[in-house]
Amino acid sequence: MSVTAPRGFRAAGVAAGLKSTDARDVALVVNDGPDAAAAGVFTANRIKAAPVLWSQQVLTTGLLRAVVLNSGGANACTGAPGFQDTHATAEHAAAALSAAALSGATDGATAVGAGEIAVCSTGLIGERLPMQRLLPAVDAAVAGLAADGGAAAAEAIMTTDTRPKTTVVAGAGWTVGGMAKGAGMLAPAMATMLCVVTTDAIAGPAVLDEALREACRVSFERVDSDGCLSTNDTVLLLASGASGIAPSQAELTAAVTAACHDLARQLVADAEGASKEVAIEVVGAASEDDAVEVGRAVARNNLVKTALFGNDPNWGRILAAVGTTAAAFEPDGIDVAVNGIWVCRSGAAAEDRSKVDLSGRQVTIRIDLHAGPAEATIWTNDLSHAYVHENSAYST
Amino acid sequence: MSVTAPRGFRAAGVAAGLKSTDARDVALVVNDGPDAAAAGVFTANRIKAAPVLWSQQVLTTGLLRAVVLNSGGANACTGAPGFQDTHATAEHAAAALSAAALSGATDGATAVGAGEIAVCSTGLIGERLPMQRLLPAVDAAVAGLAADGGAAAAEAIMTTDTRPKTTVVAGAGWTVGGMAKGAGMLAPAMATMLCVVTTDAIAGPAVLDEALREACRVSFERVDSDGCLSTNDTVLLLASGASGIAPSQAELTAAVTAACHDLARQLVADAEGASKEVAIEVVGAASEDDAVEVGRAVARNNLVKTALFGNDPNWGRILAAVGTTAAAFEPDGIDVAVNGIWVCRSGAAAEDRSKVDLSGRQVTIRIDLHAGPAEATIWTNDLSHAYVHENSAYST
Repeated sequence: MSVTAPRGFRAAGVAAGLKSTDARDVALVVNDGPDAAAAGVFTANRIKAAPVLWSQQVLTTGLLRAVVLNSGGANACTGAPGFQDTHATAEHAAAALSAAALSGATDGATAVGAGEIAVCSTGLIGERLPMQRLLPAVDAAVAGLAADGGAAAAEAIMTTDTRPKTTVVAGAGWTVGGMAKGAGMLAPAMATMLCVVTTDAIAGPAVLDEALREACRVSFERVDSDGCLSTNDTVLLLASGASGIAPSQAELTAAVTAACHDLARQLVADAEGASKEVAIEVVGAASEDDAVEVGRAVARNNLVKTALFGNDPNWGRILAAVGTTAAAFEPDGIDVAVNGIWVCRSGAAAEDRSKVDLSGRQVTIRIDLHAGPAEATIWTNDLSHAYVHENSAYST
Repeated sequence: MSVTAPRGFRAAGVAAGLKSTDARDVALVVNDGPDAAAAGVFTANRIKAAPVLWSQQVLTTGLLRAVVLNSGGANACTGAPGFQDTHATAEHAAAALSAAALSGATDGATAVGAGEIAVCSTGLIGERLPMQRLLPAVDAAVAGLAADGGAAAAEAIMTTDTRPKTTVVAGAGWTVGGMAKGAGMLAPAMATMLCVVTTDAIAGPAVLDEALREACRVSFERVDSDGCLSTNDTVLLLASGASGIAPSQAELTAAVTAACHDLARQLVADAEGASKEVAIEVVGAASEDDAVEVGRAVARNNLVKTALFGNDPNWGRILAAVGTTAAAFEPDGIDVAVNGIWVCRSGAAAEDRSKVDLSGRQVTIRIDLHAGPAEATIWTNDLSHAYVHENSAYST
């Protein structure tokens, strides 16, 4: 059910011809209220796509009535004309939604302004969007809005994803739903291209902001598929209040975190060309920051990643990656297990590496720094021939 | 002529059977003086191999009479027994060199102590060296020392290198020679596995240290083949004084820099599985540090590297990599040229990307930040199927 699982939301996914296939490529998510509270987290990349700049500006009010999303083009590095395209998309959606509301298509609906509409784009960087195809598709999406449109919307935001990513988390009388796309360019400080999370809980912008930031911190920001940070990464959280229930901050944060966690794992599972899903569990760290730094250094190391692709439990490369960090540890005090076999103890060879079974898709690397009580897990993938093929043969 | 081009040096390269092939795998470089001044630069990795720990300790005196190098095993992450192996290697070499000297084999030679001998190792991390094969090979190397042994020594330190790397730079009556190995794990703050540079100039340890640090800073430390930092990286500079000439600091630094530059370029040219040699020229930077940070971010970006492998002048990925840095720039103020075609001006599309010819092996990416007068060039490679194959199919 994706983003339409919570009450108060409608969605649509239509085909505009932005992609070279006939697949859906424009999505619309509408919050019918009664509330229109929202929060957002955006890419840390200093080169931000036009829709990111637009949506950041829109969200300063803490209110969102709708989100327009497109695949088939990132609208990044397109200068002032690209920003005007984003603005025109929001204006066009606002007019279409307002006309539909005023024609009585939706009970109790009111006029919508462009400043209440976020825009998200994903695809090739550096090219303008074909507005003559995008704008009619926005009209079609408005006409196609449905209370069960979440699945179509999740499909429409896919690029190299092989499957849509959706989630539903149940609260006590309220619900969190979500969709995400992303199968490459996954990295801190934001690890998805696009994600929309919805809830029918009652929550103001500040509560939503805190919930979303904490959720991202321990989910998307702990995924590091290929170390590359996108220009377009956007995570939005919209609350309709339609359940009539106001959960506590802790309850809401927990549910949003669970939703983001679920989506983040689906991203890793579908990462471009990956043959392994790798959890790097760093324990015994002096601080959570140290644990994250170590996990990320291992996740980004191409020699570790190629070794995993080759089913080689190469703990020496893991240690070499740990050694590049500033985390607290003694070089001769580190233990490493690969899929449960402690191949390295005290910084030297221990159990026979031939005992390690790397034939499956799931890999767990456990690194004990013996420096404190903190821990963190980073999720990544191997570096495969398919990754090289997918990213060398196709422009993104 | 490699390390034996300058007067006062002998070298040898022999086969000990450390490698699975019959190739040479143990090298010896001896400084016959009259001076024995030396300097070293070592890996910044906190997980340091036993020979690195040993050689750092030895070099605190600023004196080196000989260097023993082996391929076929890194002796890293081998704990106290591994360090004892390195120590035993130095002791064994000292005894053999002293015996040869005392037997009159070399005119004017004197006894050598283990504390005057550096040790370098390269190969698989985490396994002990087969000392029963290594120590007899040290004897054979001592017996085989020759004033024209530089080529054999350069061969003996090769691992996945497809060819030996040597250099000779002529000074005014004095000479600098060098050899290096390394075709992977090339990264800052040290970009080679092993390198020995020799000179017959007269220069004390402090002068050598300054020359070597500056040379490394602008050569090996600006090579970033795969972003991975080794546990064993070592660059040594030995001066015999045999020319009788004492060049100025500037003259010596320039010659050593030229030698390191030449070797660094050979490393990039022979990097594992690379199909492109890529120079990333960052200009218009506010500072040299900014230029290096930007160049490195682009060099390490797997999406840029796979695009280059696919002959795709994907400037959007280059800009996205620049955007991850803290360097001074305006997002809409960056120009990017690929092989001379300015595909991006002011952060947006400019010249037709189809004009870019990426069919050759040499690629130049020029990035103008328009933020100041500083510049730097980083050398890297593409990310190819052969890289994935070489690093997944073989343990290193």
